[in-house]
Amino acid sequence: MRARDLAVDFPAVTLDSSALEAAKLLAEQDLPGLILVGDDGRPLSILPGTQVLRLAVPAYCQDDPALARVVDEAHADGFLRQLGGKTVRECLPEQPRELPVTDAKATVLELAALMARTRSPLVAVMDDEGLLIGAVTLQSLLDHTLRP
Amino acid sequence: MRARDLAVDFPAVTLDSSALEAAKLLAEQDLPGLILVGDDGRPLSILPGTQVLRLAVPAYCQDDPALARVVDEAHADGFLRQLGGKTVRECLPEQPRELPVTDAKATVLELAALMARTRSPLVAVMDDEGLLIGAVTLQSLLDHTLRP
Repeated sequence: MRARDLAVDFPAVTLDSSALEAAKLLAEQDLPGLILVGDDGRPLSILPGTQVLRLAVPAYCQDDPALARVVDEAHADGFLRQLGGKTVRECLPEQPRELPVTDAKATVLELAALMARTRSPLVAVMDDEGLLIGAVTLQSLLDHTLRP
Repeated sequence: MRARDLAVDFPAVTLDSSALEAAKLLAEQDLPGLILVGDDGRPLSILPGTQVLRLAVPAYCQDDPALARVVDEAHADGFLRQLGGKTVRECLPEQPRELPVTDAKATVLELAALMARTRSPLVAVMDDEGLLIGAVTLQSLLDHTLRP
């Protein structure tokens, strides 16, 4: 079983996508993360769900979650409103060192090692020209490898 | 909205649980991770799904996913068999520096900051005595904060 057998179509966002719409996409489609592609169709970044939160959480709260407690409940409830009107480009967190990206020939062990190492439940699969073929999720990987 | 309003019952595993059963629990119930509790009911660790993979992926593949390519496809397909007969205790990866654990009073902003910082789509919620009340998932957090 190779990445090409597991990769499925996955919604992609661009730098000009609305950050709020990106968060809604994640929530409504129950996605483990988002794939950010450039105008040329090549993956620019893969944002695990937890890193999509970074688009909206103020930097001082990320550095020290205890500081988030000084924000009152009503304002805390509306923290995602900070995304309103912003694009993904404006909210993009610092790039990770290594992107969870692989090619069509990757085995399930390679996919698992890449997920474990990059802490991403989502791996983008590219063709030989670096174009996005689809994505493999952690759930899909486990479902296929645990199937009797 | 506080952690106590969002926390739901969540299956927990112990150090003596079967590692393979733990992986199956994650896959079958579509969980974003697992909560490991001690005999006293206190959370010992929270393993995001990607870190549950670490229970089965050989260390040399985690250090360099490219090395996983030398393992042939048939063996790669069966990598989860490595978990057979082992307990969670035997497979437990290195502990993270900071556990995604909070108390019942945490706001959604605190929960989001904690998920972003620890890269865990799952936060365990404890009572004043450190006992597990339940857990908040990233999906549940987004669903509640994006609800109109």
